[in-house]
Amino acid sequence: MSNPIDFYFDFSSPYGYFAASRIEDIAARHQRSVTWRPILLGAVFKVTGQQPLTTIPLKSDYARRDRERTARLLNLPFKMPTKFPISTTAPARAFYYVHNKDPAQAKRLALALYVAYFADDVDISAPEATIEIAGHAGVDKTEIARALNDATVKDRLRHEVDAAVALGVFGSPYIVIDGEPFWGSDRLDQVERWLESGGW
Amino acid sequence: MSNPIDFYFDFSSPYGYFAASRIEDIAARHQRSVTWRPILLGAVFKVTGQQPLTTIPLKSDYARRDRERTARLLNLPFKMPTKFPISTTAPARAFYYVHNKDPAQAKRLALALYVAYFADDVDISAPEATIEIAGHAGVDKTEIARALNDATVKDRLRHEVDAAVALGVFGSPYIVIDGEPFWGSDRLDQVERWLESGGW
Repeated sequence: MSNPIDFYFDFSSPYGYFAASRIEDIAARHQRSVTWRPILLGAVFKVTGQQPLTTIPLKSDYARRDRERTARLLNLPFKMPTKFPISTTAPARAFYYVHNKDPAQAKRLALALYVAYFADDVDISAPEATIEIAGHAGVDKTEIARALNDATVKDRLRHEVDAAVALGVFGSPYIVIDGEPFWGSDRLDQVERWLESGGW
Repeated sequence: MSNPIDFYFDFSSPYGYFAASRIEDIAARHQRSVTWRPILLGAVFKVTGQQPLTTIPLKSDYARRDRERTARLLNLPFKMPTKFPISTTAPARAFYYVHNKDPAQAKRLALALYVAYFADDVDISAPEATIEIAGHAGVDKTEIARALNDATVKDRLRHEVDAAVALGVFGSPYIVIDGEPFWGSDRLDQVERWLESGGW
């Protein structure tokens, strides 16, 4: 059995949302599984000294246009959230808590969180919003509420972010296939070709 | 007849080189012509306050890998130049001088300059190198040598850069189809679809 593909993303990243909607299908076409790994870009940027895209005037205007155009091309519901970017600690903790028990359910939760944020303008940085969405995804709400403040869950997320930084992850989405990194949803075509051919 | 596609690029941009190798074919498939517009990213960055990619540690490591991988995928000769990035005033002036008389020859010259820089490691920031390459491309070398210091040619390049900045061009390659901007060689797929469908 081949290694799983590592899929790093931040819940506040629109291109992460676009990639999340496609990565499982791409992997499945090549008999691969995907390990989803939400990270906190804010923490990554602190280490790498990067600035969020929104601070660069011309680029941010273009980025707005590019996001909407790409969403339309992918037939994905998309509306730039009122609050952006946001801290995604709560959704990321919820993800890892659920993931420990049921990775498939965790992926469904991740997609639900993305849709809530990027289609329905729900501020998922709020723990209550994350809990509500987890409830809809079939997770016990009391359990999730407790998990968001659980020391083990907090440590798990911290560890995942540290490990990602140590590996060189600097953006979202960031996909690693057998050690080969691909950054950005616009590299999904190369991801697919890499899986097809084993590299070039 | 449809409007020409505007193709902005800097001779020091590897992704500009990748796009230059494909843009004419893509446009021709949709009965479009392409207006090539070399610019000076250094001047653009001064206005927009951006930093070259190479100043961001993790990103620059990834970028190196991505460039080589993309070149292999496109079957393009590619070797990261010893001196990078460079000032591209000389090649850009040479381009506009030739373009005034023969746009098709100017495009051939642009491709020859790109190959010299990104495949043969020739430092095309040196006027002598640009003159030599222009000579190989069938342009009179004495004429080009004079053109590189000609006030009209200098003004033309300055005007082109100013107009690009005014339009919002902030990177290379940057392609505009009927007012719709596309940034990056990884948007060529969307460029092709846009030409096919007239937008979405």
